[in-house]
Amino acid sequence: MKIKVINPNVTLSMTDKIGAAARMVAAAGTDIIAVSPRNGPVSIEGHYDEALSVVGILDEIRTGESEGIDAYVIACFGDPGLLAARELATGPVIGIAEAAMHTASLLATGFSVVTTLERSCIIAEHLTHTYGMAKFCRGVHGSNVAVLDLEEAEYDSYRIILDSCRHALTADRSGAIVIGCAGMTDLCARLQDELGVPVIDGVTVAVKWAEALVAIGLKTSKKGDLAPPIPKPFIGDLARFGH
Amino acid sequence: MKIKVINPNVTLSMTDKIGAAARMVAAAGTDIIAVSPRNGPVSIEGHYDEALSVVGILDEIRTGESEGIDAYVIACFGDPGLLAARELATGPVIGIAEAAMHTASLLATGFSVVTTLERSCIIAEHLTHTYGMAKFCRGVHGSNVAVLDLEEAEYDSYRIILDSCRHALTADRSGAIVIGCAGMTDLCARLQDELGVPVIDGVTVAVKWAEALVAIGLKTSKKGDLAPPIPKPFIGDLARFGH
Amino acid sequence: MKIKVINPNVTLSMTDKIGAAARMVAAAGTDIIAVSPRNGPVSIEGHYDEALSVVGILDEIRTGESEGIDAYVIACFGDPGLLAARELATGPVIGIAEAAMHTASLLATGFSVVTTLERSCIIAEHLTHTYGMAKFCRGVHGSNVAVLDLEEAEYDSYRIILDSCRHALTADRSGAIVIGCAGMTDLCARLQDELGVPVIDGVTVAVKWAEALVAIGLKTSKKGDLAPPIPKPFIGDLARFGH
Amino acid sequence: MKIKVINPNVTLSMTDKIGAAARMVAAAGTDIIAVSPRNGPVSIEGHYDEALSVVGILDEIRTGESEGIDAYVIACFGDPGLLAARELATGPVIGIAEAAMHTASLLATGFSVVTTLERSCIIAEHLTHTYGMAKFCRGVHGSNVAVLDLEEAEYDSYRIILDSCRHALTADRSGAIVIGCAGMTDLCARLQDELGVPVIDGVTVAVKWAEALVAIGLKTSKKGDLAPPIPKPFIGDLARFGH
Amino acid sequence: MKIKVINPNVTLSMTDKIGAAARMVAAAGTDIIAVSPRNGPVSIEGHYDEALSVVGILDEIRTGESEGIDAYVIACFGDPGLLAARELATGPVIGIAEAAMHTASLLATGFSVVTTLERSCIIAEHLTHTYGMAKFCRGVHGSNVAVLDLEEAEYDSYRIILDSCRHALTADRSGAIVIGCAGMTDLCARLQDELGVPVIDGVTVAVKWAEALVAIGLKTSKKGDLAPPIPKPFIGDLARFGH
Amino acid sequence: MKIKVINPNVTLSMTDKIGAAARMVAAAGTDIIAVSPRNGPVSIEGHYDEALSVVGILDEIRTGESEGIDAYVIACFGDPGLLAARELATGPVIGIAEAAMHTASLLATGFSVVTTLERSCIIAEHLTHTYGMAKFCRGVHGSNVAVLDLEEAEYDSYRIILDSCRHALTADRSGAIVIGCAGMTDLCARLQDELGVPVIDGVTVAVKWAEALVAIGLKTSKKGDLAPPIPKPFIGDLARFGH
Repeated sequence: MKIKVINPNVTLSMTDKIGAAARMVAAAGTDIIAVSPRNGPVSIEGHYDEALSVVGILDEIRTGESEGIDAYVIACFGDPGLLAARELATGPVIGIAEAAMHTASLLATGFSVVTTLERSCIIAEHLTHTYGMAKFCRGVHGSNVAVLDLEEAEYDSYRIILDSCRHALTADRSGAIVIGCAGMTDLCARLQDELGVPVIDGVTVAVKWAEALVAIGLKTSKKGDLAPPIPKPFIGDLARFGH
Repeated sequence: MKIKVINPNVTLSMTDKIGAAARMVAAAGTDIIAVSPRNGPVSIEGHYDEALSVVGILDEIRTGESEGIDAYVIACFGDPGLLAARELATGPVIGIAEAAMHTASLLATGFSVVTTLERSCIIAEHLTHTYGMAKFCRGVHGSNVAVLDLEEAEYDSYRIILDSCRHALTADRSGAIVIGCAGMTDLCARLQDELGVPVIDGVTVAVKWAEALVAIGLKTSKKGDLAPPIPKPFIGDLARFGH
Repeated sequence: MKIKVINPNVTLSMTDKIGAAARMVAAAGTDIIAVSPRNGPVSIEGHYDEALSVVGILDEIRTGESEGIDAYVIACFGDPGLLAARELATGPVIGIAEAAMHTASLLATGFSVVTTLERSCIIAEHLTHTYGMAKFCRGVHGSNVAVLDLEEAEYDSYRIILDSCRHALTADRSGAIVIGCAGMTDLCARLQDELGVPVIDGVTVAVKWAEALVAIGLKTSKKGDLAPPIPKPFIGDLARFGH
Repeated sequence: MKIKVINPNVTLSMTDKIGAAARMVAAAGTDIIAVSPRNGPVSIEGHYDEALSVVGILDEIRTGESEGIDAYVIACFGDPGLLAARELATGPVIGIAEAAMHTASLLATGFSVVTTLERSCIIAEHLTHTYGMAKFCRGVHGSNVAVLDLEEAEYDSYRIILDSCRHALTADRSGAIVIGCAGMTDLCARLQDELGVPVIDGVTVAVKWAEALVAIGLKTSKKGDLAPPIPKPFIGDLARFGH
Repeated sequence: MKIKVINPNVTLSMTDKIGAAARMVAAAGTDIIAVSPRNGPVSIEGHYDEALSVVGILDEIRTGESEGIDAYVIACFGDPGLLAARELATGPVIGIAEAAMHTASLLATGFSVVTTLERSCIIAEHLTHTYGMAKFCRGVHGSNVAVLDLEEAEYDSYRIILDSCRHALTADRSGAIVIGCAGMTDLCARLQDELGVPVIDGVTVAVKWAEALVAIGLKTSKKGDLAPPIPKPFIGDLARFGH
Repeated sequence: MKIKVINPNVTLSMTDKIGAAARMVAAAGTDIIAVSPRNGPVSIEGHYDEALSVVGILDEIRTGESEGIDAYVIACFGDPGLLAARELATGPVIGIAEAAMHTASLLATGFSVVTTLERSCIIAEHLTHTYGMAKFCRGVHGSNVAVLDLEEAEYDSYRIILDSCRHALTADRSGAIVIGCAGMTDLCARLQDELGVPVIDGVTVAVKWAEALVAIGLKTSKKGDLAPPIPKPFIGDLARFGH
């Protein structure tokens, strides 16, 4: 089974980290293809970055369909382009925020999200409504770590995020942490050990959930709004998306 | 890995069917232990049946904890006793309605539930609110098949349920079907083929999700209300539940 | 008129206290039958305790139906087994959390719940959603008094709860207190005097509401999901619940 | 105990009917004072009628406070002026829509409202949100009976309303009827007998609930927004409301 | 085009201030008629004041209809009598809370309301639900300035309100301020300059929105519940409202 | 004042029609710049088309900022890229679905949306939640007219849409129509005349609302998540979006 994990930003060190995390949990027969698009921002920290990252995501889905990909994971906590990607894809497409939040709701009656910059918090808050998870999410917290700071070895992002998690668990009276950035995937095991509560990384749960759906034979519904896009011309730089 | 799949009613033919469905999708190293409690109703068709089935479920979780069970699936569409079971369990506990509804929300922007008796519909409707899935669930439909009719070979429950599904997809403008009874697990593949939309059976998706969580190392949060029950005496028939 | 007030835990001193509170407000012709089940925990402090207490509650409803009971009150703030009980009962069945929350919404535009352990708070929070009272409930507060501490004369639970109430009224900008445990019923009048706001005890309001419904001739609907349970066999310890 | 039942329209035959219904269920020591204001419309069938009826209601509360009234019932299904009345009143003030809807939610998991003109339906729908009852109310139905037609002996409003109820129970898959007009109070017993489900009349349940609150010693909260109106001048026709 | 701006309290200095603010933003051809009713309270600070102010508002709408008014603005932050006014009016009727909240939701993903007395906060909170704005409103704050204090030159209400706004922006993590009283309209420009975020005054946005609707030819729907009031007698002081 | 109206599809006949509609209602001093991006699909009929159209929208906002644009209107009923556009823009950015839905909620207590293909309905349904308008929107109806059919003179889209509107008003018990496609802007006046209810076209109301905000001096909040995008490199085709 082939699962394509799309890091929608173009920072390859992060893509590698995400791919490694995915491979760590993947089943024996699962082939993890971790990619970054050829277009897009070096990090995603707002509505604008996110909206533009969708082009690259859809490029990757488009090529994925001819590569025999069985399922896709969108590895950015804003889950950009999720429904658009589902129109293109035959198999399941899972966002990491979606996967993490749903999973958290099974492990605790309330969870907290700890993410990067405070300005990204609203994106996670909106997603809690989009996914029906608002009732379970007791707070969204910015740790004021920029996304690319997570890639700096000398920067002690672990300590800052740990503190944010501790604060969140107490302030929110919550029982689990959802980690709000794909770039934090390597910190989760350590955070979970130190905090003593489930710390949920969307990358790993999305990969496993994707595996599960493929194993069962479940695909994206092609009845209704997730049917393949209606064929039509696109012009300019985007011409490749039409036909 | 050991996953205990608890059919909370005491009809063993149904337990066997559920166990078979679970084993069909389980990964190589997964041991499926499909059980019915020693106490309880022959079928679960209402609030009363469901409430009483919780005793047997908790018995199975209690013994499961000393049997090295890694995760539990509660295989009745009302997900009886879910939070109580999570207090007892170390590993994850997943309800099949929960698993099916969450999964459906990834495969279509709207799903319909098709269940057994009309009087059970309200239980599914309540669960859509409990799980935050109300926005995705566009309708809950009773097919007027009694649970134990599903065990009767000569009874053409397949045809009746197929018709209910067809009606639901059109009336609800939905893109996927959630099958609202563990006893219908054997009908799903055929329904999916004939309907051409995802038909989601909670048993299989719950088993795979449980496998996924165990693989990642995620367990039930023991901070807060899902911590182990506070030790205290129980009296009468229930004395075994105290200490 | 006969009203059966069921304390679902088996601590008889609490049952007596609840019975006394009920009798204090009951009308002249009302016969209050305050009982504890023969099965169950000594106190209810979580999902597990609550789920198991339902067996005893249903026993009491079952026998109640042959004793000519007109209405039932479930005197535990989690309202365990409410819908199951309603299937069995001919007359109304009222939970004390339900009665207290609905009543509070008539006396103030916002109320606070003050309950026992913090781990029980989520149960009250869930009930605010179940009953549509989330908009009125501005906060749920654990006072960290264990249920059975309320039975200890030397333990100054009054002072602790008073402080919790004071904090709640200010922090929540609320106008009334809902007392979140049947075991606190004897403290309410004193709290109300000292706080100068309505302090609502579910036991007394449930009893009076039950009286009211009986007086008017209103009973539990037997159309739909609250119709009598479908007759079927139960096995094991629970065989008495089938037929 | 004195309960003032305010029919906010000025049709005295309706006031008499409402008073009679109230007295029928009132306890021995309860004095029912059924009144219509000196100002206002002959019937209330829309936002405009309702808004203007509040003047008369507040007049009745104002005088009630000097008459030793213990509790008030506002006997119009739109519950006009409820919060304003609560500022003025020391004791509880209950609206009949509020009382009926809350009560219905105890007797069935879903109810239907059957009211007079279709244009009034939105008022009931808004109230289901105001009171948190939207989840229980499965439909609001206009029977196209004008309010004053209910006062015409020769007009067969009973038959029309019965048909509306029958339709509502089936179409909504509901288990109880809330009668959406104080002028239908005399039809309820007959409807309940014929329909075989609880038919809830707000007048009677509000009166009994008011009695209950007074018996327990619960009053309107005077902390916060329901405190007595801030003294200030009013001018013109309304000068009597200031001081 | 004629827009009638109704200050529902009878304090003419406030009416003048509101009229001036309206004229400042009105287009060249727009005639602003700023009025206070002949009846009503000197300020509106609670449910009671608000409910009674509706009489004067409806008087002004009634006369407005014979004066060729094209649209109305109700210039009190509680938006009293909005739906009743819409039944009477042919053109649009806009409340200032409504206009301000909707507008704020276009300029920021979250806003805070800063109003006068704390007891008025609940009115704004209720309106956020009425208008669907609860998701955007991250907090409602009382500044403890009484409405008429805003008319006292020597009283430094500006400073107090500025502090409330500053606190709200931080505590609520919001991006805009909605000013919760028509009497603060003259403070908004200065607040906006000093705070560096949009400060939205309902008076000006309501006037401009009203102009916009008239320019486009949009009027209040006369299909359904906002159709003209059903003609009927009113008695007493209110007789002028019937026919 | 300069308002840029962005038709996010690249069909210029539609852009012209939208520009004409905007100019028809614009005030004397308003300069309407109606544009289509250089990139993108010929029509927008699904999540995929919509997601990709955002690139062109952001191009237009980017250039608009150096052209002295005061406000922007996004003239596609899915309001693509709204929050991303707001990060870039100094002035207000308004979506036509947003403008139309908010406006409809002022003119009727319930509205219906009539749009093009049935597969687009879910997009409008999601927006009713995004904007808090779900409570006002009583139904979303696909008329099965493709977007580009609206540009075909010989195709009788008017008749088909009129029928959809008629059906919607009755089935939904609504009082106004929101037209769910910018390409229908030229049909609205005729529909409104024939239907006798407000028919709201997002293009015109968005333009007027934009004018209003500019006139008052209200701009997009730059505190929080709508602050200018954090400067960072973009690679590939999208490099122009970074710096």
